[in-house]
Amino acid sequence: MSADWKTLNTKVIDAGGNNFIEVTLKQAPEEQDMFIGFSKGWTNSEGLKRYKSNVLFKIAQKKELFDAVEEMLSLAEEKSSQKSSDE
Amino acid sequence: MSADWKTLNTKVIDAGGNNFIEVTLKQAPEEQDMFIGFSKGWTNSEGLKRYKSNVLFKIAQKKELFDAVEEMLSLAEEKSSQKSSDE
Repeated sequence: MSADWKTLNTKVIDAGGNNFIEVTLKQAPEEQDMFIGFSKGWTNSEGLKRYKSNVLFKIAQKKELFDAVEEMLSLAEEKSSQKSSDE
Repeated sequence: MSADWKTLNTKVIDAGGNNFIEVTLKQAPEEQDMFIGFSKGWTNSEGLKRYKSNVLFKIAQKKELFDAVEEMLSLAEEKSSQKSSDE
């Protein structure tokens, strides 16, 4: 990502071991579109953050993102309640 | 991702050009934890999906994911309302 991109906010979520997931708000150069980014990475033995991959969503597509996440969460809930009623 | 992982659901979001973002619900082998995955990729000239990167969140961490996304969205809204009042 070029230096012209601005990172407006970052939240780090512990993903176990040395791994983390970062959720960021980024702005494209020249005050263009904003994006929500998901990045995964790990902290190396010197305490430096290393990144493996990232996925960016346009803020303008937040509805599609939310709808998709909601759908996955309700299916996940359904599956785990089936599982616990089987036990 | 090994063949033992199950993809329980997939939603494809158009990301402009030949690009797409996929939101998936995945289950780890042997009915272990479920995850929400975000993948980005593109469709090549033969119509095949090619993947560039992906980030996985444990369903158990959904609160952290949601909180982070909500925080980014409200900051994005703040920034764009500042921008329009400057104009």
